[in-house]
Amino acid sequence: MNSELASRIQTRLDSLTKPPGSLGKLEQLALRFGLIRGTAMPTIHKKVMYVFCADHGIAAEGVSAFPQAVTRQMVLNFLAGGAAINVLCRHHAIDPRIVDCGVIGPAAPGVINHKIAESTRNFAHELAMTRAQAEQAIAIGRDLARDCDILGAGEMGIGNTTCAATLLSAFTGLDPSETAGRGTGLTADALAHKTGVIRAALALHHLDPQDPIGVLAAVGGFEIGAITGLILGGAERGIPVMLDGFISCSAALVARAIEPKCLDAVFFSHRSAERGHKRMLEALNAEPLLDLAMRLGEGSGAALGIGLVEAAVKLYNEMATFSSAGVSS
Amino acid sequence: MNSELASRIQTRLDSLTKPPGSLGKLEQLALRFGLIRGTAMPTIHKKVMYVFCADHGIAAEGVSAFPQAVTRQMVLNFLAGGAAINVLCRHHAIDPRIVDCGVIGPAAPGVINHKIAESTRNFAHELAMTRAQAEQAIAIGRDLARDCDILGAGEMGIGNTTCAATLLSAFTGLDPSETAGRGTGLTADALAHKTGVIRAALALHHLDPQDPIGVLAAVGGFEIGAITGLILGGAERGIPVMLDGFISCSAALVARAIEPKCLDAVFFSHRSAERGHKRMLEALNAEPLLDLAMRLGEGSGAALGIGLVEAAVKLYNEMATFSSAGVSS
Repeated sequence: MNSELASRIQTRLDSLTKPPGSLGKLEQLALRFGLIRGTAMPTIHKKVMYVFCADHGIAAEGVSAFPQAVTRQMVLNFLAGGAAINVLCRHHAIDPRIVDCGVIGPAAPGVINHKIAESTRNFAHELAMTRAQAEQAIAIGRDLARDCDILGAGEMGIGNTTCAATLLSAFTGLDPSETAGRGTGLTADALAHKTGVIRAALALHHLDPQDPIGVLAAVGGFEIGAITGLILGGAERGIPVMLDGFISCSAALVARAIEPKCLDAVFFSHRSAERGHKRMLEALNAEPLLDLAMRLGEGSGAALGIGLVEAAVKLYNEMATFSSAGVSS
Repeated sequence: MNSELASRIQTRLDSLTKPPGSLGKLEQLALRFGLIRGTAMPTIHKKVMYVFCADHGIAAEGVSAFPQAVTRQMVLNFLAGGAAINVLCRHHAIDPRIVDCGVIGPAAPGVINHKIAESTRNFAHELAMTRAQAEQAIAIGRDLARDCDILGAGEMGIGNTTCAATLLSAFTGLDPSETAGRGTGLTADALAHKTGVIRAALALHHLDPQDPIGVLAAVGGFEIGAITGLILGGAERGIPVMLDGFISCSAALVARAIEPKCLDAVFFSHRSAERGHKRMLEALNAEPLLDLAMRLGEGSGAALGIGLVEAAVKLYNEMATFSSAGVSS
């Protein structure tokens, strides 16, 4: 934290034609954005939303309301521009980039192909991925975190709320009954089954939160690894990373365990309706911007969050000051 | 409520490529927007933000942290494009329209001139306005509620949180200690003084909540009357009205007392940091979209709310369906 820069930004905020502090969290967003970018004159021109996509071996355990084939079908939907994240990216003039980290089948035409393998393995029985694959996933995201003013983190992968809930239990010690949720729409019976799958996986793998790469390899996903890398890379290069909901915040748990200071570059866009997200945000000491009962993923909440940060930065840059406008302060 | 139309809109929402309900409040926004517009194919092209401006005789009681001259200075700032509401309207491509309902001094060049009088009178001693003036204020807003797809309600008027708090006490019976807040930034002593001014005004005027025009005339403001009319006119013509914070919601109290069903056409954008707003929203049975600790007025929260409704309507219109995208449902 650069206190001299913070003071300069705050001085300008207080000179704008409004009662001091009256823009609330928007003022905090402008301040944090400038601190991450390292300038009192920050601007937002290029906004990029990465949607990392991958399949999950754990889907074989019947933990999702949708069949595994939907991962690939949604990749094609993203590429055709018909998914929610496409609409929201158009609404906020964000560049959507669809990355295949491990979808089953050949890479779709137009996707950014970083396929590590066709799906992780089933962590009910074995490690989801090797340690080398976990490091590869992180490297994908870390390398993509460049050449823009703000990054969004989205994802698609049938079964990945099970990964995220298991990661939350692994890093916090919370029982799976508190971390597992209905995902895309499980029945109560199916949720009970999912909770049992997570409990058994925790017993099988003996996860050590001091070894975040090992935890990611055991029960994570390729897209979660890539978002972990996006956070680390954004923090290293001074590019803010807007996280979405339950899945991308599970990557923040991994990233923080690797480098605690990386969360200084992170914005938390929204509180998801997925049950475990409230606990996850508490574990991350995070106060999200929005609470709209969304639970879609894809980066949908992050796109809205980027719109708010952009509003905040525009207010900071474009508002008149008391002296320039001749308003009594 | 048109249940056949609601059913058609819901059917389309559930056909879109997302788990049912996973866009949370955005789905509710799309549904309500279509119901207000009376169509299952709603669109948003023209968005208008009215910023109603007026001065207040009650300002003479020392109830604001800013001098009364700031009302006029801010009108000039709005017209020059330098205020927060200008930036937020540009961000969301909303047309800002500045209406002078009763600012002290001549109408500024470029303002929409509906000046009723140069300020209300001081309701610590007499009625703020005549009943005819209250009706005139309502007529201004009612007539402007046309020729667009969504309306925003903003305001500017030094002293108007005192009006809004007095209206809240009048319509709910809440003690001024629960309805008065720090406005633009009062000290604790000044807040105690403001609370006393409101308590004395309530004792002076014997307000009857069954006579909303009479209440508005006694302790309201011209801009509050105009927003009351905007709500009534929007409801009459099927144009949704996005309210801002404490002041515009006080107009909703007046409008509801005139025509309870008018709130069907209203969206509540945000929960303001102004102390009485939480109680006001409860009195209106309203759940706002945003909670960003803003307390600026001008329509600033409403502009952000319009951005969310527009996102919701675009999602409704532009997303692929399960069948069109070939996604398993």
